[in-house]
Amino acid sequence: MLTLYYARDTISLATHILLEEVGASYAAVRIDFKTTQQRSPEYLRINPKGRMPALVTERGILTETPAMLVYVAQAFRRPDLLSIDDPFAFAEVQAFNAYLCSGLHINHAHRMRGPRWVDANDTAAIAAMQRHVPVSVGANYELIERDMLKGPWVMGERYTICDPYLFTLAQWLEQDGVDPGSVPKVIDHRRRMSARDTVKKAIAQELA
Amino acid sequence: MLTLYYARDTISLATHILLEEVGASYAAVRIDFKTTQQRSPEYLRINPKGRMPALVTERGILTETPAMLVYVAQAFRRPDLLSIDDPFAFAEVQAFNAYLCSGLHINHAHRMRGPRWVDANDTAAIAAMQRHVPVSVGANYELIERDMLKGPWVMGERYTICDPYLFTLAQWLEQDGVDPGSVPKVIDHRRRMSARDTVKKAIAQELA
Repeated sequence: MLTLYYARDTISLATHILLEEVGASYAAVRIDFKTTQQRSPEYLRINPKGRMPALVTERGILTETPAMLVYVAQAFRRPDLLSIDDPFAFAEVQAFNAYLCSGLHINHAHRMRGPRWVDANDTAAIAAMQRHVPVSVGANYELIERDMLKGPWVMGERYTICDPYLFTLAQWLEQDGVDPGSVPKVIDHRRRMSARDTVKKAIAQELA
Repeated sequence: MLTLYYARDTISLATHILLEEVGASYAAVRIDFKTTQQRSPEYLRINPKGRMPALVTERGILTETPAMLVYVAQAFRRPDLLSIDDPFAFAEVQAFNAYLCSGLHINHAHRMRGPRWVDANDTAAIAAMQRHVPVSVGANYELIERDMLKGPWVMGERYTICDPYLFTLAQWLEQDGVDPGSVPKVIDHRRRMSARDTVKKAIAQELA
């Protein structure tokens, strides 16, 4: 059985949703960011990066959302979620998720996780990074809205692992200072995702 | 035929090396960062992100190094470079590359690309980010050295798409302020990669 280590209001929700989508039997273990449990010796033994999420499998422990999403879809024999039968379509799925991982998510992280990139005592630099988030995250959403989100799902008619990933990040869009009126397709996608039973169940578990 | 758009001294070298590894017939088109050609209307039509690299295929244009590496290996029927027959091993390959993409490469980018994350006129914040690069990039290499690089190749005995990716980033290790003496396995890997004919050929093409 799989065990997902997650924290509320983090990117772990993407993998959590996918576990529901594939009908996995899994345990979900909450890590508390308020007590910095992600830096505890116990959790660092599971994920030495001290980050969320981690997925414990029979073969070993996996981290990094783009990798975990592909793994879950493959392990539960759902190639349709990856388009993995078609190298070009699979590459498009991967390119979208890489953009979320190294672009949108990272830019978003400059609002709350400034000390990753400057000295923790440099409040001026931390504030400077926070002020820029609406610009950098806004540019990501502009590109997603204009060029990347095909609709109704990210890759068009087919629901893929890109959908729970975008949905999770789009939860934070307003807090990141992006005007939801400027990204109607992203908001429509978020609404459609919110209506799925799998999404409701994963969120309910995390908030319980 | 494939066309790779690349720029000197950028992450495009990883895909360039892989094209040589698989024996691809491809064209390589240089984009000049000194004249900000990556922001020219011509290049933005190829890659609206204005970033390197981009790979033009018969089916469309791909971006994002982790996606391009998987695509090249699949298109040239080299599943061994991905371990794609084994979902867990493939997930480990993907997790490593996601860590490079959203961790090491991003942290490195704070040395030269500060205005992505703060206002371009805020020289103090840009300098603050630069000063932190040895810390953040150093922590990435510490983890790679200790937990991730199995040796002799990243994934152990099998050479995979992780190898040209790590090699490309490790070119910049000293400039990023990391003591090469602290990461002997990474340096040994870099030396072994440098000795490959495919790597020499890709570098020679880029420097020509």
